[in-house]
Amino acid sequence: MVPRPLEAELILAWPPLRTEHQAMLQRIDHLGIAVHSLEDSIPYYEKALGLKCEHVEEVAAQQVRTAFFQVGETHLELLEPTSPESPVAKFLEKNPHGGVHHVAFATDDIEGQLAQAKNAGCQLLHEKPFAGAANKFVAFLHPKSTQGVLTEFCAPLEGRS
Amino acid sequence: MVPRPLEAELILAWPPLRTEHQAMLQRIDHLGIAVHSLEDSIPYYEKALGLKCEHVEEVAAQQVRTAFFQVGETHLELLEPTSPESPVAKFLEKNPHGGVHHVAFATDDIEGQLAQAKNAGCQLLHEKPFAGAANKFVAFLHPKSTQGVLTEFCAPLEGRS
Repeated sequence: MVPRPLEAELILAWPPLRTEHQAMLQRIDHLGIAVHSLEDSIPYYEKALGLKCEHVEEVAAQQVRTAFFQVGETHLELLEPTSPESPVAKFLEKNPHGGVHHVAFATDDIEGQLAQAKNAGCQLLHEKPFAGAANKFVAFLHPKSTQGVLTEFCAPLEGRS
Repeated sequence: MVPRPLEAELILAWPPLRTEHQAMLQRIDHLGIAVHSLEDSIPYYEKALGLKCEHVEEVAAQQVRTAFFQVGETHLELLEPTSPESPVAKFLEKNPHGGVHHVAFATDDIEGQLAQAKNAGCQLLHEKPFAGAANKFVAFLHPKSTQGVLTEFCAPLEGRS
């Protein structure tokens, strides 16, 4: 039966069903990987893994130099500390060989994702997202409440005030 | 100019140019994440991150129970040790809060990827791929030669003998 206009309008206007498990995370945006030296690490990612370094960038606010590689829909973001006070330097003290420093998930609803995490009992490092590197809004969950994986949400900065 | 048939054939038959940086990795297949208890961790991933646990599976050979969540083209694979001898139990001794245990890259040329890594000076944990969980051929690089990130290559088992 073809719905009458009023019925069609009601169907379209009906709020989408949201289940407890509805995911708002779209993909892994990037993995932040702590390294001692980009000069030593870039050749490994290029020659051993066959990836291409897209660009190198210093992020003064985080006291790191970064190098980006793309794999599918995700970037690997190598992080070299530029100061002993950098959070990445502290990670390397505990993990002297380096390793995965954080996992960043892309979402189109960063505030909703933060609210969901908070409602589930997570501690937020940032109550509100802020403008980070690479034209993105970002916010982190406190690592004490993320099962050991430092977790970032990020969303495009474009169109935000 | 429209090429004559012979020229067109030559162009089509020409081997593709391979540069030093040509990537054979297609995507991040999964992140292996060490946790103490799936029962404690699954609710975090479901309620705080909004993901859905697809299934739970014991992998006796690795002495782990695993839980799978999909995010975009990648899976998160939670790993709970089932024995103190499990490699994941040893990881948790060093990283008591848990964390990213390994990064697995999908490729359609696992032998080529292993050869490339070996040529670049990497030590291989497995010279030849073997049948792993989830219907995949897998092989690992030795973590001493991977800048601190335990690295797996994997390819579909289908069509292999």
